[in-house]
Amino acid sequence: MRKYKVAVLGATGMVGQKFIQLLSDHPWFKLSALAASERRVGKSYCEEVEWKISADIPEEAGEMTMLPLEPREIDADIAFSALPSGIAKKVEIEFAKAGFVVASNASAFRMEKDVPLMIPEVNPEHLQLIEVQKRNRRWDGFIVTNPNCTAIMFTITLKPLLNLGLEDVKVASMQALSGAGFPGVPSLAITDNVIPFIRGEEEKVEEEPLKLLGEFNGSEIVPAPIKVSASCHRVPVIDGHTEAVWTQFNGEVGVEDVIDAFGTLKTLGLPTSPEKVIIVRREEDRPQPRLDRDEGKGMSITVGRIRKDGKNSVKYIVLGHNTVRGAAGASILNAELMAKQKLI
Amino acid sequence: MRKYKVAVLGATGMVGQKFIQLLSDHPWFKLSALAASERRVGKSYCEEVEWKISADIPEEAGEMTMLPLEPREIDADIAFSALPSGIAKKVEIEFAKAGFVVASNASAFRMEKDVPLMIPEVNPEHLQLIEVQKRNRRWDGFIVTNPNCTAIMFTITLKPLLNLGLEDVKVASMQALSGAGFPGVPSLAITDNVIPFIRGEEEKVEEEPLKLLGEFNGSEIVPAPIKVSASCHRVPVIDGHTEAVWTQFNGEVGVEDVIDAFGTLKTLGLPTSPEKVIIVRREEDRPQPRLDRDEGKGMSITVGRIRKDGKNSVKYIVLGHNTVRGAAGASILNAELMAKQKLI
Amino acid sequence: MRKYKVAVLGATGMVGQKFIQLLSDHPWFKLSALAASERRVGKSYCEEVEWKISADIPEEAGEMTMLPLEPREIDADIAFSALPSGIAKKVEIEFAKAGFVVASNASAFRMEKDVPLMIPEVNPEHLQLIEVQKRNRRWDGFIVTNPNCTAIMFTITLKPLLNLGLEDVKVASMQALSGAGFPGVPSLAITDNVIPFIRGEEEKVEEEPLKLLGEFNGSEIVPAPIKVSASCHRVPVIDGHTEAVWTQFNGEVGVEDVIDAFGTLKTLGLPTSPEKVIIVRREEDRPQPRLDRDEGKGMSITVGRIRKDGKNSVKYIVLGHNTVRGAAGASILNAELMAKQKLI
Amino acid sequence: MRKYKVAVLGATGMVGQKFIQLLSDHPWFKLSALAASERRVGKSYCEEVEWKISADIPEEAGEMTMLPLEPREIDADIAFSALPSGIAKKVEIEFAKAGFVVASNASAFRMEKDVPLMIPEVNPEHLQLIEVQKRNRRWDGFIVTNPNCTAIMFTITLKPLLNLGLEDVKVASMQALSGAGFPGVPSLAITDNVIPFIRGEEEKVEEEPLKLLGEFNGSEIVPAPIKVSASCHRVPVIDGHTEAVWTQFNGEVGVEDVIDAFGTLKTLGLPTSPEKVIIVRREEDRPQPRLDRDEGKGMSITVGRIRKDGKNSVKYIVLGHNTVRGAAGASILNAELMAKQKLI
Repeated sequence: MRKYKVAVLGATGMVGQKFIQLLSDHPWFKLSALAASERRVGKSYCEEVEWKISADIPEEAGEMTMLPLEPREIDADIAFSALPSGIAKKVEIEFAKAGFVVASNASAFRMEKDVPLMIPEVNPEHLQLIEVQKRNRRWDGFIVTNPNCTAIMFTITLKPLLNLGLEDVKVASMQALSGAGFPGVPSLAITDNVIPFIRGEEEKVEEEPLKLLGEFNGSEIVPAPIKVSASCHRVPVIDGHTEAVWTQFNGEVGVEDVIDAFGTLKTLGLPTSPEKVIIVRREEDRPQPRLDRDEGKGMSITVGRIRKDGKNSVKYIVLGHNTVRGAAGASILNAELMAKQKLI
Repeated sequence: MRKYKVAVLGATGMVGQKFIQLLSDHPWFKLSALAASERRVGKSYCEEVEWKISADIPEEAGEMTMLPLEPREIDADIAFSALPSGIAKKVEIEFAKAGFVVASNASAFRMEKDVPLMIPEVNPEHLQLIEVQKRNRRWDGFIVTNPNCTAIMFTITLKPLLNLGLEDVKVASMQALSGAGFPGVPSLAITDNVIPFIRGEEEKVEEEPLKLLGEFNGSEIVPAPIKVSASCHRVPVIDGHTEAVWTQFNGEVGVEDVIDAFGTLKTLGLPTSPEKVIIVRREEDRPQPRLDRDEGKGMSITVGRIRKDGKNSVKYIVLGHNTVRGAAGASILNAELMAKQKLI
Repeated sequence: MRKYKVAVLGATGMVGQKFIQLLSDHPWFKLSALAASERRVGKSYCEEVEWKISADIPEEAGEMTMLPLEPREIDADIAFSALPSGIAKKVEIEFAKAGFVVASNASAFRMEKDVPLMIPEVNPEHLQLIEVQKRNRRWDGFIVTNPNCTAIMFTITLKPLLNLGLEDVKVASMQALSGAGFPGVPSLAITDNVIPFIRGEEEKVEEEPLKLLGEFNGSEIVPAPIKVSASCHRVPVIDGHTEAVWTQFNGEVGVEDVIDAFGTLKTLGLPTSPEKVIIVRREEDRPQPRLDRDEGKGMSITVGRIRKDGKNSVKYIVLGHNTVRGAAGASILNAELMAKQKLI
Repeated sequence: MRKYKVAVLGATGMVGQKFIQLLSDHPWFKLSALAASERRVGKSYCEEVEWKISADIPEEAGEMTMLPLEPREIDADIAFSALPSGIAKKVEIEFAKAGFVVASNASAFRMEKDVPLMIPEVNPEHLQLIEVQKRNRRWDGFIVTNPNCTAIMFTITLKPLLNLGLEDVKVASMQALSGAGFPGVPSLAITDNVIPFIRGEEEKVEEEPLKLLGEFNGSEIVPAPIKVSASCHRVPVIDGHTEAVWTQFNGEVGVEDVIDAFGTLKTLGLPTSPEKVIIVRREEDRPQPRLDRDEGKGMSITVGRIRKDGKNSVKYIVLGHNTVRGAAGASILNAELMAKQKLI
């Protein structure tokens, strides 16, 4: 099989680095270009990047020369975007216009009506929005996005609960430092501390799940009829977002109902798919970020402490790797699904 | 004024140490005895204690000889109990029988029908249970308790909200290491990690507020008609419990209503009282444990990020010092209130 | 007594904040001006500063309007400089020319031949360099400096060892995060990690002690005839530099000789002087930064684990508070000494 | 090739767990028995162990039934000992008498005259002591040991420097939490802190390198004629000991001499051997424990910041994984060397 050529836009940041690591030796995708801001153009990647992943820079990527964020300079089928939202707003459109499939981790277009916001195991049918987008915008390519790193974790667990009559969700997140990029959170600010605020986070966490869990009615996504309320906090953890979730249903639901429902969410068998989408642990003190974040190479969601909370309510803890399942891995899985469906 | 003589039971543990620190130079109380488990008896405190507070051991206390946990060996008016719950169950009864006022931080008797569970600013009228207790038990002394360190923080904020029609509360705690005592949580377990479980904690956090906010009907406490659901987590913070709270009311409530209500909770002007019981901060990223835990010498509660969450609901963050307002300081404030009311 | 009017140059940084905290309620000094970079001028201090100290901003300082770094705009006798070295190079000269006593924490002029590099308890006689400096430079004022935060800690302990025949010193530092200012070290870089490099640090740590321990020969400082070799490392500690020190002598020296020598370094009785300059602890596991950094309000040096290391050698651990004894407190103590000697 | 049957003594502790992880799928060794203290005997390993490694328990090991620490109950060729030193003293002798090859990580016998203390790349010829041991003790089996986890890291780097005229070594360690086992260091003791003391550590670190670098004269090891002085400190790092090393020679030595010498230490090509024994990094801020500890699957030593320190002296930073190269991996590499030399 011929591999798709893929570019990474915003290659030197934390998420860009994770893209490069995850794309190394990918069975379907071959890294063909690294693009970054003007001042880096023309330099080799390994000279320019402040590499923060403990495994070494994949050799092939390290030797690449950095290219500008301009479509005509880039030779690729797919452009993975790790751009900051402000820049993504402009650059991703240019790439889509120029015919690229843009698989974006940026928040810029997630809530646009004709842009799919995807978790392959949750709402694969939303890829039909691509047709709508192409019709609307008359671009040669298109944009597909993945959700916010905190939203994605618990939304995966909500999908199988919809059928049980889910109505209301509260989520308190304890988010990892890597979610803020590099340099990100100063050590003086977070050592021996919790910061109970992450700018713009609660809004995304409350809004995106409704689109993700919504129904495609042929022309747009009808948001799921649930309410999500979030309280987001930063804790001194390197990787892995931990989330305390309360779910309320329109009737009685038990712990085993919820566990059974979680079991119905099956792997898609794509290259980056985890064997188990949701891992349920029955120990009293799991999941924990340091112990569970690497499950399924960072693509599994681990759930634990599922407990009854009154007649119609169940609460539990969710954990996932925020830069893998919550960022680069999410975009790559989206691209794999599109490749499988011959949308690329 | 003659000072009351006070003993500390369980003087070598973390809470015992905090008692000794807070009682040093107390205007009403004079430390007269330190009691601990059998193997320490007869030794000087400073030899035996593994002192964990950065300020030095108060000299007077350091030179005291450790006494056994036996009433007849102790010369004091008040016995502050920092005992583990299992031991407290037996020892506190013996001290109460022998005529001591037992001001206990242990959980052993908190939920007993005739034992006051007190936060002086919240339910001072519950001290009337002392009469009931004395009648029931025919002890010469009596037991008064303070709540769990996580429960106390947000319960203080709930008191002024009762009048606004409070019905339902959800709380996600991010609890400090000192809450687990010493040695407590192994560093290997919590470095770069969150532990989403604290044994027995959620039960206490869900149950105690109902008693604390309940009404004394002349013979017992009628629990407040609200529901509390908790999810408790340990984070790598030395002191200070941070709590994300959702409150739901039976009608519309706004952010300023809540702030106004918080302002109605006045200081009692006791020696250990903070000037402000609840401090409201309006910065977007406060309270934070390292920055706010020492407010009011550890006795103030700091609240921030008060925000609307749908029509009838408000959410906010609460923070307090778990070994001061949440343990030793709470017991001492209880004793001060009793002293002022001539109950000792 | 009339108080000296003092200004803080570079008032919004970490060291600037510490100056303001330590100068609040100072018996000899009264804060009269806060100066900072151009973009902050005209704004009130409390609006502009990102205050990082847990105690609140002293009210008086909070309400001050920020002034430019220009001598004619500043009404003060002493200018405390918390400026970055590059800016200090230019600005401090302007202030000295304009007649100010500049008490600087910056490294810019520390090693200039006619600029005193001072630790009041170690080399008070070096203040005679002021005369030399005035003669050389024909400024109306002058510059006096304090050493690097890592150098100052162990240099204080070396002073009393000079008479024992000290020849060679090796020091391995484990330095606190606050030494790097704010934002400083990213949390992602230092969590679960040690960074064995601090730019420019080892050079200062090896060079400054020789001047500090040198002799004033009437016109300049003859460096002490010892060799210092340093290895500097950053560790995840908020405040307090820990230093492992090896000292080698030209003859046999015992542990008690060293302890006796440390006892000879007496407090100067200045307002900011600690009661004990060097505190020797005999426990096997002290000093520790979290437990000992606040000794003497951050101005004492704590030494422990003093142990024999072959016939002519002794090793020990030194600890001191890097932003107090190692920065703002050091400058203030210098100014107090000058005030006492009527040099201001 | 038939695999050797191997047992792990002390299987439930931190080092025991690491043995089990490293022995899973070993090409030469097959886990045949897990032995532990009396109270665990008869139970399955996965029930009993408090597994602390993030990867799951190897299935085969998890299902094993725990056996007592008695030779006749154990069917194995090699007994890997992760026992505490006190117990090792008795149990390892019993296993050696009973004919087992005991590859021990305990300190009990390391300094015994006829017991090899081994680092395969450093002193393989010391295995000749086995003959001496067998002659002396008339046991059917024998004991071979690996060094202390802090000693092993820098001793590997000293070996190639011996020929350059090495005379004196000073080492300041910044040691990881996992070196203290589980529960080990309390989080309250080490958060925002450094503990400058590890019981018994400096003695081992100063003594063991002399034996490791010594010469076998046909009957015993003549210690290397160098002096080592250590200062050992615990820092808040999970895995990976960082060591600042000063080396002094009897003549001039340059940085490139040292780098060249490090390159002469070749891999032995055993199953657990790293490709590179010593990795030299030229960045100014490496090695760092979180970034470099897993090099060579935890068996490589990373060295950096090699710098001149006067004419006859060089200083540098060493890093290695303390539970792999410093414990379980060290014992396994010893056993592999013995297997290759047909000593088992």
